[in-house]
Amino acid sequence: MQQHSYKISVKTNGRRLYDITPQVLTWARSSGFKTGLLTLYVQHTSASLLINENYDPDVLVDLESFFERLVPDGDPLFIHTAEGKDDMPAHIRTALTQTSLSIPIKQGKVALGQWQGIFLYEHRYQSHDRRILMHVIGE
Amino acid sequence: MQQHSYKISVKTNGRRLYDITPQVLTWARSSGFKTGLLTLYVQHTSASLLINENYDPDVLVDLESFFERLVPDGDPLFIHTAEGKDDMPAHIRTALTQTSLSIPIKQGKVALGQWQGIFLYEHRYQSHDRRILMHVIGE
Amino acid sequence: MQQHSYKISVKTNGRRLYDITPQVLTWARSSGFKTGLLTLYVQHTSASLLINENYDPDVLVDLESFFERLVPDGDPLFIHTAEGKDDMPAHIRTALTQTSLSIPIKQGKVALGQWQGIFLYEHRYQSHDRRILMHVIGE
Repeated sequence: MQQHSYKISVKTNGRRLYDITPQVLTWARSSGFKTGLLTLYVQHTSASLLINENYDPDVLVDLESFFERLVPDGDPLFIHTAEGKDDMPAHIRTALTQTSLSIPIKQGKVALGQWQGIFLYEHRYQSHDRRILMHVIGE
Repeated sequence: MQQHSYKISVKTNGRRLYDITPQVLTWARSSGFKTGLLTLYVQHTSASLLINENYDPDVLVDLESFFERLVPDGDPLFIHTAEGKDDMPAHIRTALTQTSLSIPIKQGKVALGQWQGIFLYEHRYQSHDRRILMHVIGE
Repeated sequence: MQQHSYKISVKTNGRRLYDITPQVLTWARSSGFKTGLLTLYVQHTSASLLINENYDPDVLVDLESFFERLVPDGDPLFIHTAEGKDDMPAHIRTALTQTSLSIPIKQGKVALGQWQGIFLYEHRYQSHDRRILMHVIGE
């Protein structure tokens, strides 16, 4: 049994979903595990992780439309507004999605379903460097 | 340290929560681990995983009522509507719940709390074959 | 490769977020792992886990305000009301947040980001004893 870990950095340029599937699969393949468990972890509280459809880009548009309506920017409900009207909504969107994700590795492949992609969800308007840790254990 | 994995298939016949606790516990017991970590992973973007109360079935009714109101089918907000009015809501419900779940194994048992059950949440109206991967690592 | 597990108990006295970061870090450090994966699991269906900002306490106030508005207590939509008007909302808030969380351990430290804290989210009004399992695997 062995383990490996790696940190990837994603430069974001505004609020949207960023497909990180290629980077994750490339690293997982290079790590050489046949069977195991891959865990992704994002080290932020205003960006999150999500597995969703990566075929029709309209899905990503609709996800964003939904979250914008569900958690309105500049909502007078919020008192934590130091960094602007997208500050507190970013924390709430993070709470409603994922900070960690685990995916089995089978037959040397990350066992994503046919339509599944792995996304970093940037919830802030401004550009950020987002760090995602990948950890795999298995053999 | 060892690991095992297994794929279960759940035939769904409409939108609701399906209790998969018995299948998960049966497989976990047969795998013979005394201590370890069990991870469940659903390979879909319109069905998800959830741990919630499995005692009073009214909880499942209310969960569904809530999600139907929160993410209205046929909402004109959505542009990804190719597969019908439950298409995009299914992706959003998946984003709001879980694609992966990890539960420790202690003293040979999956360490669920007293009232916890493990559910597959089917978000589409039509019947589907849903695949859930189970992975356990430990000894 | 080794594993350890431990159960912590958190006495809650009402609905709010409880910062459990110190207890988690203390145990993780004492377990002596240099590299590995830490998993937290809450054995309840009306309390959940969340990673969010632990710097400005206003973030916690706003998270609670948001969830109170999103899932209204005493909503006539709900039929599972045996334990009061916060009963079913507690199950829904649990579904919308996390029951399990996994965080890599690197260089002997739980790899939280700079502003990340780990919280138990108590969703019931009354006092409860909440059990959280911690499991670490690695070396």
